[in-house]
Amino acid sequence: MTLKYGIIGSGAIGGYYGGKLANAGKDVHFLLHSDYEYVKKNGLQINSVDGNFHLSDINVYHKTADIPQCDVVLVGLKSTNNHLLKNMLPPLLHKKTLVILIQNGLGLEEDLQKEFPDLHIAAGLAFIYSSKLKDGHITHQGLGNINIGSYSCPNSSLLETIVTDFQESGIDATLSDYQEARWKKLIWNIAFNGVSVVLNTTTDKLLHNPYSLQMLRKMMLEVIQVANHSEIENKIEESYIDSMIELTKKMPAYSPSMKLDFDFHRPLETYYIYSRPVIEAQKIGLDMPLVSMIEKQLKFIECMYS
Amino acid sequence: MTLKYGIIGSGAIGGYYGGKLANAGKDVHFLLHSDYEYVKKNGLQINSVDGNFHLSDINVYHKTADIPQCDVVLVGLKSTNNHLLKNMLPPLLHKKTLVILIQNGLGLEEDLQKEFPDLHIAAGLAFIYSSKLKDGHITHQGLGNINIGSYSCPNSSLLETIVTDFQESGIDATLSDYQEARWKKLIWNIAFNGVSVVLNTTTDKLLHNPYSLQMLRKMMLEVIQVANHSEIENKIEESYIDSMIELTKKMPAYSPSMKLDFDFHRPLETYYIYSRPVIEAQKIGLDMPLVSMIEKQLKFIECMYS
Repeated sequence: MTLKYGIIGSGAIGGYYGGKLANAGKDVHFLLHSDYEYVKKNGLQINSVDGNFHLSDINVYHKTADIPQCDVVLVGLKSTNNHLLKNMLPPLLHKKTLVILIQNGLGLEEDLQKEFPDLHIAAGLAFIYSSKLKDGHITHQGLGNINIGSYSCPNSSLLETIVTDFQESGIDATLSDYQEARWKKLIWNIAFNGVSVVLNTTTDKLLHNPYSLQMLRKMMLEVIQVANHSEIENKIEESYIDSMIELTKKMPAYSPSMKLDFDFHRPLETYYIYSRPVIEAQKIGLDMPLVSMIEKQLKFIECMYS
Repeated sequence: MTLKYGIIGSGAIGGYYGGKLANAGKDVHFLLHSDYEYVKKNGLQINSVDGNFHLSDINVYHKTADIPQCDVVLVGLKSTNNHLLKNMLPPLLHKKTLVILIQNGLGLEEDLQKEFPDLHIAAGLAFIYSSKLKDGHITHQGLGNINIGSYSCPNSSLLETIVTDFQESGIDATLSDYQEARWKKLIWNIAFNGVSVVLNTTTDKLLHNPYSLQMLRKMMLEVIQVANHSEIENKIEESYIDSMIELTKKMPAYSPSMKLDFDFHRPLETYYIYSRPVIEAQKIGLDMPLVSMIEKQLKFIECMYS
């Protein structure tokens, strides 16, 4: 079974995973926005710690109406643009299309499902350090594994085929419990993203300083406590905090995606990474004081700088 | 009874209160540091919302050894310099000298008492907007009332004489329960000082933005809860938060003292305003999660910028 892949948002994330699939000969169709003309003419360059490659013969589109119906749609948009999906997605969808949201935060699948009640949706949680700092050039600095968890996909063989496609393309992909995948990624995101914006810094400094490290640990603990009270299958151990810290320590100095968004004056993904988790926690009677505080600091910063 | 006043730290606070006393004809002796030569030559200029005045005939000193023994010593140093008091104070002290620490934070009197077990100590909690932005010039932008609370002063008539001296000098001074005075001032300081540094902003913006305002309220509530579990005589009502917010709203855009310290690359008073209250709270089994978080953010910022 040869799957047709559509990539919505071919930036640091969508461009990387779509690029890997295309480079392995999979049938991939990229929606591009600001650098459509550039990539159409020059192709897509991926500079990766795992080896650079260039895609010159690449299917690029400027609007989804031109893309053929796909079996799998990988959404790599910033979640601040998810309101666009309502109009962007329909041309790509057949009855069994699976949409995988490779995005950070909580509640993304729930909100999309409200717009498309019959759509098959999954989450893709990517642990990857990548960025797109100029047209048609994606820089992959490290990691790259992705956990895929079904939100409303009834077809487990499709999920397995996708994982096989990813693995054949050199991507470390695994199937995971949806809730576990979302929350585990959120633990990292909540700790590092907002704090790097509020304190105007990078991961290495946050990990090196004993005060910020203590703060990160406390925030991660708050998230784990809420996760373990949600519908998650396997409880997350506190030792997961150590593994996230060790993982991040191994990386070079890094600006988390929200810090890059802030530096480049793009909207921040505060809602899905902070506000929504706080709301979901409140629904089950739990409080996340530190996470709520960073949320408020981010909202203040957004008001000041927008 | 004519009291002899010594002013240790003649900056925005010590310079203002000492200046008011001197201007009313009280016997005041100023220790000056960086602008000693300037003030010795040109006098001290106070530009105040209550009326400007100039002190040309003023007793200024460059070291405490030259100051006569005083009945009252007002300490207006930054608390980051309190380690200097051990050597600075002795020349000014007779057996009944009262040292009033007009400083922000918690535990200042306790620490000084350890150095001078027989010293008579009081706290002076000043609600004042003033700054010293150039040599010999103090700008008083608003308020100015001071609550004086005895920490270890056995002489209540001395305290009353001081209050009378202050009032005769146009200062709104009152006697207050020591614990109540310290904590009430701390409520304002903990909320506004650190947050203005972390979010790089001024009081008006913090009060105008609904997210930061909510954060300030929560922080003040944390402090009130700890205060009411300490040895305070009269419990502080939650409505005190509203009064602090209203008081601050009436002021023009203002950089709290810690923000000025940050902007001018001076050490921050993090220890006595944040760390010590957190430690004292822990001693009575209470947690201040938001205050602790701001403390850690400040410590991170101090490490990065020092």
